[in-house]
Amino acid sequence: MTQTDFSAWLGAQREFFDEALANSVASTSAAKAPKPLRDAMTYALLSGGKRVRPGLCQLAFESVSASQGRRSHEQSPSTPFLPAALACEMIHAYSLIHDDLPCMDDDNLRRGQPTTHIAFGEATAVLAGDALQTLAFELLAMQPDAELVRDQALLLSQASGAHGMVGGQVLDMLTPGADCGLAQVDAIHRAKTGALLTASVLLGVRAAQGDVDRWRAYAEPMGLLFQATDDLLDLTATTAELGKTAGKDAATQKPTLVAAVGESAARERAHQLAEQMADAVSILQVGETSALLLCDLSRYLLERSK
Amino acid sequence: MTQTDFSAWLGAQREFFDEALANSVASTSAAKAPKPLRDAMTYALLSGGKRVRPGLCQLAFESVSASQGRRSHEQSPSTPFLPAALACEMIHAYSLIHDDLPCMDDDNLRRGQPTTHIAFGEATAVLAGDALQTLAFELLAMQPDAELVRDQALLLSQASGAHGMVGGQVLDMLTPGADCGLAQVDAIHRAKTGALLTASVLLGVRAAQGDVDRWRAYAEPMGLLFQATDDLLDLTATTAELGKTAGKDAATQKPTLVAAVGESAARERAHQLAEQMADAVSILQVGETSALLLCDLSRYLLERSK
Repeated sequence: MTQTDFSAWLGAQREFFDEALANSVASTSAAKAPKPLRDAMTYALLSGGKRVRPGLCQLAFESVSASQGRRSHEQSPSTPFLPAALACEMIHAYSLIHDDLPCMDDDNLRRGQPTTHIAFGEATAVLAGDALQTLAFELLAMQPDAELVRDQALLLSQASGAHGMVGGQVLDMLTPGADCGLAQVDAIHRAKTGALLTASVLLGVRAAQGDVDRWRAYAEPMGLLFQATDDLLDLTATTAELGKTAGKDAATQKPTLVAAVGESAARERAHQLAEQMADAVSILQVGETSALLLCDLSRYLLERSK
Repeated sequence: MTQTDFSAWLGAQREFFDEALANSVASTSAAKAPKPLRDAMTYALLSGGKRVRPGLCQLAFESVSASQGRRSHEQSPSTPFLPAALACEMIHAYSLIHDDLPCMDDDNLRRGQPTTHIAFGEATAVLAGDALQTLAFELLAMQPDAELVRDQALLLSQASGAHGMVGGQVLDMLTPGADCGLAQVDAIHRAKTGALLTASVLLGVRAAQGDVDRWRAYAEPMGLLFQATDDLLDLTATTAELGKTAGKDAATQKPTLVAAVGESAARERAHQLAEQMADAVSILQVGETSALLLCDLSRYLLERSK
C-alpha cells in the first residue's frame, strides 16, 4: 500500500471485490441453486455498494501483514483476507434485503435500485437473504486453515447475531426516537451496524494472525462513527445522493443520534469518535503508510457525503 | 444404547434436548440479546417438536462411538454431538419461522401453537429466524476442536443454503403441483428437507470421527423417506394430529410425492426408501444394538402418524 487516501484506495479495490462477489456465487454450492434464487442473491450482492466492509477487512489484513514484513496485496496476488471480506459483505447484503421488507422498513429503493423484494417478490427476497447468510459461513468454512475458520466464524456469528446486528435491528425497531438518550443510541449503533463493521476489521486482522483484541480500540469507535455520520446524512443529503429514501429517520421517529442529542452535539460526538480512532492507530504497531490510511479512514467517515 | 425401538429412544431424549436448547440461548451471545428477540427465539425453539434432527445426530454419534469401542451416552455424560445436534434444530426452527410467514406459506398454526409471527409480529419473527440461523453457526464455532468446527460448518452450510434447504424451499414454491414428476419431487425433497436431515446424521458421524461419506448411503434415503411420509400424512391425518393445518398441500397445489405419482405409488416409493435404509445399515459397520435402532428408524418413519 502506497495510497494514503482511503476513499481513493477503496475505490481502487471496488472492481476486484465486485468480481470476487460474483465469483463467490459461482464457486460455492450456490452455483447449483435454483436460478431465481441465484438471481436474487446476485442482484442483492451486486447492485451497487461501496464495499466498505470488504475494504476494511483487506485494509486491516494488509496493515498487519506489512507490519510483520509479509507481502502486501500489491506485491503478490495472495488474498487470504478474501473469504472473510466476502462473508462480511454477504451478511451486510442479507441484512439489507430483510431490513427493506414490507414488515420491516418497507423500502422500495436501495442504492438507487428497486429493493430485492420489489424486483423478485417478498418470498424469494426472504429466502435470498437467508441463503446469503448461510453462504457467508460456507465461504469461511471452505478455508483449509481450521483454526482460522473457527475463530472467524465465532467473531462473525457473534457480531451478526442476536447480540450483534440482528439484536441491534430489534432495538432500533422497538425504541421510540423521541425517548432515547445517548447511551441507548450508542448501544443500538454498536449492535446494529457497529458490530459487523468492527468484525470486518477483526476478521482481516485474524487472517493476518494479528492481535484481534488490540485492534478493537480502533475498530469499535470506527463502527460507531459510521452510523453517526449515517444519521447525520439522513438529515442533510438528498434521496438522489443517498440512493435510498432521505429524511426517513425523522419522519419515522427512528432512535438516531440526532434524535437523541440534536444535530450539533451529534457532530461533536462524530468528531470525538474520529479522534478515538486516530489515537488508537498509535497502539496498533503498523507501518507509516498503513497508519496514514487508517487515520484517513476517520476523516473519510467524518466527511462522507453518501 | 440398549433400546431398539427408535420412537421410544427418541422420546427418552426429548427432555434432555429441550433443556439443552433452552440452555443454548443462555450460554451463547444470545443471552445478552434484547428480550423480545430472545423470547421469540425461545418460543420458536421450545414450542413442541419431536427433536428428530438432534436425535438423528446423537444416534449417529453413538452408533459410530460404540463401534469404535468408545463410551456411549449411557455410560458417560460426555456429549460431543450436542453442539451439532442443537445447531441442526436451530436451522430447522429458523426455517419453520420463515416458511410460516404471510409472504410464504402463511400459516397461523405450528405444532398446535400460534406461529411465531402471530405471537410476536412479522418483523420480530423474521429477525428471530435470522438470529437462530446465526446461533447455529455460533454454537458450532464455540467448540475447541477447530477441524471439527470447519467440517461441521461446511456440511451444515451446504445442507441448509442455496443448494440445500433454502434452495428446496424456492423449488417447492415455484413448481406447480400439477406438472411435476417423480424426479422433480425427489430433487425438491432432497433439498427442502432431506439435506438437513441427512446433515443431522453426518454431523453426528463427524463428531465421532466416523466415515461421513459411507453414512450418506443411509442418511440420504432417510431424508427422502421423512418427506415422503410427510406428504402422505398431509393427505390422511387431521389438523389436530399434525399440529399444523392438514390437507394444505392439495389445496395449495404443492409439488408433493402424492401429486406427482398418486397415493399408491407414493406408498410404494416410501417402502423402497425404507428398504434402501435397511440395506445401507449393513455397510455401516456398527454394533448390533445400533443396527437394530437404525433399522427401526426406517419403520418409524414409514409408520409415523404425526
